[in-house]
Amino acid sequence: MINPEYFGFFAATLTTSAFLPQAFKIWKSKKAEGLSLSMYLVMATGTLSWLAYGLLIESPSIIVANSISLSIIVFIIIFIILSKR
Amino acid sequence: MINPEYFGFFAATLTTSAFLPQAFKIWKSKKAEGLSLSMYLVMATGTLSWLAYGLLIESPSIIVANSISLSIIVFIIIFIILSKR
Repeated sequence: MINPEYFGFFAATLTTSAFLPQAFKIWKSKKAEGLSLSMYLVMATGTLSWLAYGLLIESPSIIVANSISLSIIVFIIIFIILSKR
Repeated sequence: MINPEYFGFFAATLTTSAFLPQAFKIWKSKKAEGLSLSMYLVMATGTLSWLAYGLLIESPSIIVANSISLSIIVFIIIFIILSKR
């Protein structure tokens, strides 16, 4: 039997890295124009709920994946708010 | 003790619905210009891996969330490929 965590960490690497190009683009340009604050707030709440779920069912890959995703999303949200002022 | 699946399905609703505005936009405009095929292929592979993980650890919310997300992502990928021709 294959350890399910192999699939989990492989999945985590892919779905987390999908946010990285956007984060790099913001970091390089120091601009977050055109990005939807409400979409990222929904994603942050969803990711936080997955983190709670991961802690409750004690799933290492869900906890790690959503902690990293949440950090990147919060970084993007901060830039969106700063660029609106 | 709260049933973890409440958190899981709440999270699933939020993170899945984050893809919907993009899918609606493509459906309405019948165009998928400006969307990154490689990003959506990475997301599809990641979502498929999460689905495999959900089946292995028998988590209802991970299975449902990633089945719906994968359907939406595949729909977006088909439109991106069709619009490139």
